Order: sequence, then C-alpha cells, then structure tokens
Amino acid sequence: MRITALAGGVGGARFLRGLVHHLRAAHPDDRPEIIVIGNTGDDITLFGLRVCPDLDTILYTLGGGVHEGQGWGRVDESHHVAAELAELGATPQWFSLGDKDFATHIFRSQLLARGMPLSAVTAQLADRWGLAEQGVTLLPMTDTPVETHVVVTEGGDQVAIHFQEWWVRHQAALEADRFVVAGLDSAAAAPGVLEAIRSADVVLLPPSNPVVSIGIILGVPGVRDALRGSRAPVVGVSPLVGGRPVRGHADVCLRTIGVDTTSEAVAGLYQDFLDGWLVDPDDPMAQPGRTSRLAVVARPLLMSSVAAAADIAGAALALAQQLAAATGEAEALP
Amino acid sequence: MRITALAGGVGGARFLRGLVHHLRAAHPDDRPEIIVIGNTGDDITLFGLRVCPDLDTILYTLGGGVHEGQGWGRVDESHHVAAELAELGATPQWFSLGDKDFATHIFRSQLLARGMPLSAVTAQLADRWGLAEQGVTLLPMTDTPVETHVVVTEGGDQVAIHFQEWWVRHQAALEADRFVVAGLDSAAAAPGVLEAIRSADVVLLPPSNPVVSIGIILGVPGVRDALRGSRAPVVGVSPLVGGRPVRGHADVCLRTIGVDTTSEAVAGLYQDFLDGWLVDPDDPMAQPGRTSRLAVVARPLLMSSVAAAADIAGAALALAQQLAAATGEAEALP
Repeated sequence: MRITALAGGVGGARFLRGLVHHLRAAHPDDRPEIIVIGNTGDDITLFGLRVCPDLDTILYTLGGGVHEGQGWGRVDESHHVAAELAELGATPQWFSLGDKDFATHIFRSQLLARGMPLSAVTAQLADRWGLAEQGVTLLPMTDTPVETHVVVTEGGDQVAIHFQEWWVRHQAALEADRFVVAGLDSAAAAPGVLEAIRSADVVLLPPSNPVVSIGIILGVPGVRDALRGSRAPVVGVSPLVGGRPVRGHADVCLRTIGVDTTSEAVAGLYQDFLDGWLVDPDDPMAQPGRTSRLAVVARPLLMSSVAAAADIAGAALALAQQLAAATGEAEALP
Repeated sequence: MRITALAGGVGGARFLRGLVHHLRAAHPDDRPEIIVIGNTGDDITLFGLRVCPDLDTILYTLGGGVHEGQGWGRVDESHHVAAELAELGATPQWFSLGDKDFATHIFRSQLLARGMPLSAVTAQLADRWGLAEQGVTLLPMTDTPVETHVVVTEGGDQVAIHFQEWWVRHQAALEADRFVVAGLDSAAAAPGVLEAIRSADVVLLPPSNPVVSIGIILGVPGVRDALRGSRAPVVGVSPLVGGRPVRGHADVCLRTIGVDTTSEAVAGLYQDFLDGWLVDPDDPMAQPGRTSRLAVVARPLLMSSVAAAADIAGAALALAQQLAAATGEAEALP
C-alpha cells in the first residue's frame, strides 16, 4: 500500500503532516507507506553551504521542529552565526539562517563534499527527524544539483538572479520574464523516484506552488512520463483559496508562465495525468453546472491546523478511492 | 621600524596583546609595525570547515573578542550549532566550537573554496578584528595546508591521530612516539613571511609551545634560514615558569622529542639564531654563577594580566635594544 506525493515547501509539508495524522487515525495498525518526492529546484549554496529549503521544511515540519509561525526554519531558533557572518561582511544577508538550521546545512555540505549523493544525505537527515516512524520516506527529486533562476529586467538589461533572491529578497515583486532551471534538462531522477510513481497505489499533489515546486519536479526527466503511465489515481489539491494562493507568490509565478491564477488553469498544467482535483467551495470549478473532465470535489482547503490538513488529506485519499473503484482497483487502496 | 614575532595560540596571543599595549604606551605617536607569523600546524578540518585554532586565538585576543577564562574561543558564546550537529550524529564532538566561532570557520572555508589563499582570508579576518589599527599584520606561516599528527601506540599498533585529537580529546595523556607534520616539508612560506624575518629590526619568540607551535613554524622551508641570516636581534621568552609550562602540555611535547623541560634545553632548540632569552627569576638559568652564550634576563614571566604581558614584552624589546646597541644597530630599534 503506497502513497507517493510530490511536494514543495510549506504547503507541501503541512499537507504531508496532515496526511500522516489522517493515516495514523484511519489505519492505526497497517499504515500505508508514504514516499515523498521533494523539490530541490530552489536549492541554493549560501556561505559555501548547500541549503535545500523545501526538503528541510518537510523534515522540520514532519519532525516537529519547524517554526509554526513562519512555516519554515526551526522553532526556538537563534541567529548568532548569521550575526557574526554579517560582522565579517559575508553576503547575502537577505536569506535568514538560524543556528540550528546552519547545523543542517553544515552536516549536509560535509557529506556532499565526501561524495555522498543528496538522496543518501537526506536519508540521514530523515533519521534525525524520525520520518521512518511516521511511515515517510523523503526522496529529493534528483541528486543532480539544479537551481532555478529568474530572468528579470534591470536597467533595460535582462539578468538572471537566483530564485531565492527573487522570492525572498524581492518578495517576487521584480517583474519576471521567465524561469530557467539550470541543470534540470540533464538531471536524473534520484534513486527510487520513478519507481515510487510507477508502483504507487495513489499519487497525491499537495497544494504546493504549481510552477516553482510541482512544476520543477515535473521537469525532471522521466517524472512526467511516469505519471502519465501510472495506473494509480492522481489526485491534486488546488493551491488557490478565494482565487489566490494561501501563501507564497504562486499567482506571480503563474502570470510569469502565462497561466491564469485559477484552479482550472492550474489543473490544466497537470492535464495529461491528473484524475481528481480538490478545490475550495468558493472556487469557480465548484459552482453548479460546471463540468470537467476531472473528478472535482469541493471542500474547505485552508490548512489552518494539523486537523484541518488531515481532513483535506483524507478527502484527497477518499477521492482517489472513488476513482480507483470506478476502474476496479479499489481494494488496493488505503 | 618592524618587529616580527612567531606565535602559537594562547601564550603567543597574550604576549602579542601585551606587546601592542606596551608599544601604545611607549611609542604613542610612532608605533612600530608588528608582523606576526602564526602557526597553522594544528589546523584541522571539522565538519568540512577549516579551523585554524592559533590564528583565531590571536585574532580574537587582539580584537577583544576572546573568552578570557579559557584563553581561546569567543566570549559570550553559545553552542546551538554544535548541539544540533550532535543530534545529527556528526563527529567529532570533543572539539568545542561555539556559534560565533563557527561563523569564522564558515567564512574562511567559503573563501578557501573559492581559491583564495589562507593569507588573504586571514587578512579579511584581521580587518574584522581591527588588527591594522593596532599596527599588527597577521600572516599564516604558510598557505599550504599542513597538519600535525601524533603517532601513538594503541593496542600494540602505532597509529597516527590528528594533533587536536591528542591535545584536546586526550589532553596529551596518550603516550606519543613522535610528531609528523603532513605537508610541512613541501610547504612554501606564505607571502611576506620570509621578508618579514629578513627585514625585521627585532624578532621576538613569545612563550609559545617550542615543539608544536614555534617548532612547526621553524619547519616551514626557509624560515629557519631566514632567522639564521637575520641581522636583527632575536629575543625569546621561555614558556617555562617554575620548571613547568604555564599552560598546555609543552613538557609532554618536549619529552616526546627527547628534550628536557628546562629553559636551557628549550633555548637549545633555537641555538642557531637566538640572541636573547627571558627566563623566570626561579629558573636555573637565572641562578648566580650560571653562564650562557645567550644574553639571559631574569624577570617574572607570568602573563597574569594585560599589564603583566606588556611589561614582559617591554623587557624583551629592551633586551633586543641592548643586543643591537652592542652591535651598533641601536638607533634602528623601537
């Protein structure tokens, strides 16, 4: 019994935590296996250390170490290292790294420098955060370093800046021309990634950013083909509530790639493999009389608590079960 | 007017701070230049980060950031990074690194990874600590990575462990057979090192460890020859008070290389270039009737305060002045 999920940062992590809680309650004795394929497209090297924001947000959230208020980083965090780096004139200073967080990056960078692939390093970090006890295996989408750059216009010239600089420093307020993911074309899916999709009983798309999180994972060679070829139902959760992203700048990202900020348009990005789609009750797709090739279920999508996220995850699984039943695969489902 | 000093860690750093204070009082308007050649023989890579204990102790001490009680590391230090690395199972855990200290090592490692030589990195760290305002230039003895290993007997077999493991973890209590300084034979003196000795008006040897601090610097190709060829008086300060090292394990180090723990035997290690030698009043070399090829001055050598260290540094300079006067070079001296 295997659930495979593609996930970005905060939204993905909170959905996954809800999924774990839902399964713990619904299947206390025989919990399904969850394999998470995490986005590494916004990874960045800072101060010579490799930072994987989305993987870390998933680890910290599932492990109970996340700063709930901000959604990322560690709770009870201090910033002595960053303060001293600022004294030394080290840059950049726009990316906040706490002391405990630095330890993660130091540990990861040391193992990477020894030649250990990111997937193996991530497995060690997952041990520290007890993911196995939750039935979760976290795989980076690829062991190949990839980096998303944003092409912006500065003083009449087009320049590419790192995605994090655009996202964190400029809060996505710099007009973006396009995204370029350096290394993605030639990146190989990490060990287990394609197999996790092919052998899944359910594939879930949490409400992560459809462009710079899910969209990047879909760009890893083989991932999209595996999803198209999967017999498992693929169910996604719209990242839009009230016509806007709950957090982050998915609207700006969508506009940049010429896609409307609507659940329908986001589903269109997944149209070659998506089977079921959860939308908010106010969503235009939920209105009476609307038809869709997709199985659309309307329900509140605000992950305002772990329980709320668990309910949403449960609804996604229920929809997957319905879809599987329609094709005679119901018994294999959790 | 140039003073060149060879220095190890705590003892060297405290002597140098005294020297700066002495010169500030004695030469308020025309302070001599001080060039410090720092030992890098006990450098170590921890968690993938390059740590230079002696250089950092000098920087922190001169810059007012040192933890006075322990003599090394930063004052008002926290240890969040190290605690999290321990959670991750990262090793070793016997070398204490505080959060601010980690920032130094992250900064240095990043610049080294970009191809910047250690001497240039050290210059940037010296800027942060205001060494230029104190008239001090800190040079690592070499830009070539060297590491001191200690050959010990474990279970009947001889094994080499890193000097820091022997010094910090085992407190020099493991019987050592010999020291091996990997890379020293082929290390080149860092830019400015040999020139600093050749062009010095005075060369000072602070009371640093004669084996694993001063002794390592002397092993850098060209350094010993430059000292032998120098016309400047070379004055040293014995590291022994009451027949024992004030701190550290110089006695064990001396025994390991087959040298007695006496000021006379330590001076013997420098006999091909040493001109003057400060010893403690109780030292056998200070007793009436003793003769020496060296100019020996007896005075209290305990650096119990900055003022005490300043007085010792002043006495070393006064002895150098006497020695220069005897050879007609007095006017060039500070």
